[in-house]
Amino acid sequence: MPEKWMPPIYWEGDVVVILDQRLLPHREVTLRCTTARQVIQAIRNMAIRGAPAVGIAGAMALALGAKSIREEDPRAFVRKFFHLCRQVKAARPTGNNLGWAVEKIYSIVVENPQAGVEDMRRLIRKKSQEILEEDVSSNLAMGAWGKQVMPQGARILTYCNAGALATGDYGTALGVIRAAFAADPDIQVFSCETRPFLQGSRLTAYELKQAGIPVTLITDSAVGTLMQQNRIDVVVVGADRIAANGDTANKIGTYTVAVLAHAHNVPFYVAAPRSTIDPTLSHGSQIPIEQRDPKEVTHFLGRRVAPDGVPALNPAFDVTPHRYISGIITEVGILRKPFGKAIRKALET
Amino acid sequence: MPEKWMPPIYWEGDVVVILDQRLLPHREVTLRCTTARQVIQAIRNMAIRGAPAVGIAGAMALALGAKSIREEDPRAFVRKFFHLCRQVKAARPTGNNLGWAVEKIYSIVVENPQAGVEDMRRLIRKKSQEILEEDVSSNLAMGAWGKQVMPQGARILTYCNAGALATGDYGTALGVIRAAFAADPDIQVFSCETRPFLQGSRLTAYELKQAGIPVTLITDSAVGTLMQQNRIDVVVVGADRIAANGDTANKIGTYTVAVLAHAHNVPFYVAAPRSTIDPTLSHGSQIPIEQRDPKEVTHFLGRRVAPDGVPALNPAFDVTPHRYISGIITEVGILRKPFGKAIRKALET
Repeated sequence: MPEKWMPPIYWEGDVVVILDQRLLPHREVTLRCTTARQVIQAIRNMAIRGAPAVGIAGAMALALGAKSIREEDPRAFVRKFFHLCRQVKAARPTGNNLGWAVEKIYSIVVENPQAGVEDMRRLIRKKSQEILEEDVSSNLAMGAWGKQVMPQGARILTYCNAGALATGDYGTALGVIRAAFAADPDIQVFSCETRPFLQGSRLTAYELKQAGIPVTLITDSAVGTLMQQNRIDVVVVGADRIAANGDTANKIGTYTVAVLAHAHNVPFYVAAPRSTIDPTLSHGSQIPIEQRDPKEVTHFLGRRVAPDGVPALNPAFDVTPHRYISGIITEVGILRKPFGKAIRKALET
Repeated sequence: MPEKWMPPIYWEGDVVVILDQRLLPHREVTLRCTTARQVIQAIRNMAIRGAPAVGIAGAMALALGAKSIREEDPRAFVRKFFHLCRQVKAARPTGNNLGWAVEKIYSIVVENPQAGVEDMRRLIRKKSQEILEEDVSSNLAMGAWGKQVMPQGARILTYCNAGALATGDYGTALGVIRAAFAADPDIQVFSCETRPFLQGSRLTAYELKQAGIPVTLITDSAVGTLMQQNRIDVVVVGADRIAANGDTANKIGTYTVAVLAHAHNVPFYVAAPRSTIDPTLSHGSQIPIEQRDPKEVTHFLGRRVAPDGVPALNPAFDVTPHRYISGIITEVGILRKPFGKAIRKALET
């Protein structure tokens, strides 16, 4: 396994460098993207994944795209750029941060009608870097808030990967775990492998091992028995989109963990920046759920597991109703029930 | 995929033929066992699995072993045979049927003190075949009972493989599904892939496809979202050991499905022959749970998935408390709450 830590996405000159997470933990291979199309492809095929990281990638895709729009008339440029924004936003449907980042970038263009095209390109590029940096700051703040609700010596369950690899760096749920570990080296983590893409065994285990945080891998199906045996003190997961009432879309299987946590009186926390909140949706049922290729279920590491011709469902996300959530850890504090009110206030901050 | 149905275990002359389920669904390879040791090995490495099938294998292992005990003095024979019984019984700890079958076989020896060694060998061999045949009859009876509680056009969820491959033939939970399908071709089945060993995607999908029963594969982590969307009408699973109060050990992840079923008001049935019931244990917490090699979690089809050195837990079974179970489908009828009384009565039948 590689020894040095690599961030998931960054600018290197005019190149967007993306760590190809499909090959982790065994190989650290980077994709060097010079076009928006390449970044969109990396988002679609999950070379980069995790709602905040996808948002950052979307912003950087727009910066690359802005450079290649060969128009010097601002109105013609904006027209083409708007079209590009729609393409980027459509790369993956469930995570909120992608649409949020695209809006952020697009508003620069709208709010600077007098700017020349070259200025717009410069501002877009600058904003994409700011989105990355603000994401990392948010994660550090979430860590500081979240560690306060991790019990002494906590045995923490996490699901999927809401780590440095899913963000600009540091992570949301894993940011909370990093902060908790810095304050209390007695914590330990159980990571669910997270079928079908195995973000838990490939990415979370890799990150926590590099950080020196004790981690034990389990199958997703072992969560129930661990909770039944009182071996989990708290759950912390990330989020892909949070509705105005606190209902939270996250990686498929999160809802199951939440139901189990509820049945066993285990606190269940969501850690996410405000950019994951979608105040336009009143309920989680309105969140669009991406359906991915059934081959991710019927095949494994490229090899067929199931018999030929057997169909599979592969919803990539599920929705956890707000009633199962103990608190939403954001960069401005831990939101508590009733979430509707707490979310409105957090977004006004 | 092979076209012809092969039973999981049978006598061919003096050879115990075992279909190597580790290679399914892609290859039908049989192990031709001529010694008890070979059968024990096949049980341990899960070439044959499923509590009733393991019980049958244990009985046949004893028949092979009886032949190779080179003693013609009955008392010397029984002493060595008793030792062999203990070895066979220890092959896998959780399933009840193995110990049950060993007891059945051993009691022949005890109950026929006047018999000569050659007679004992013959009786043991005969009994092993009877155990196989009675298992199949039980499954057919379970199917007849169980289909009565499958709703019209039911969308049935099953977990792991409780099919022909887990028994002498026909299956317990899949026996119920086969009988339901024969009566109502509109039923459909959702099969959980069942990590880490993937019995659902490899074996259940294979069996149901061969039987022409519509089956859709899902990850174990997708059960919650399907139930949330009202896409599951009933759950039916097998069992490895049932305590006197109805608490049921079954493949790891079953408990999670039961909690989800309870939370969504979906009936949850266990299908198992009485040989799976262990009346000596008052509660499920007393059932020994096999811990298997962590490599089954960290590796996949022989390839490492998780980073080197990351530990994993791999409990092979969990225990579903009786309160989550709607009914236990046996060959003598469907047992209902209070299970303690119903189980006592069923065992007296």
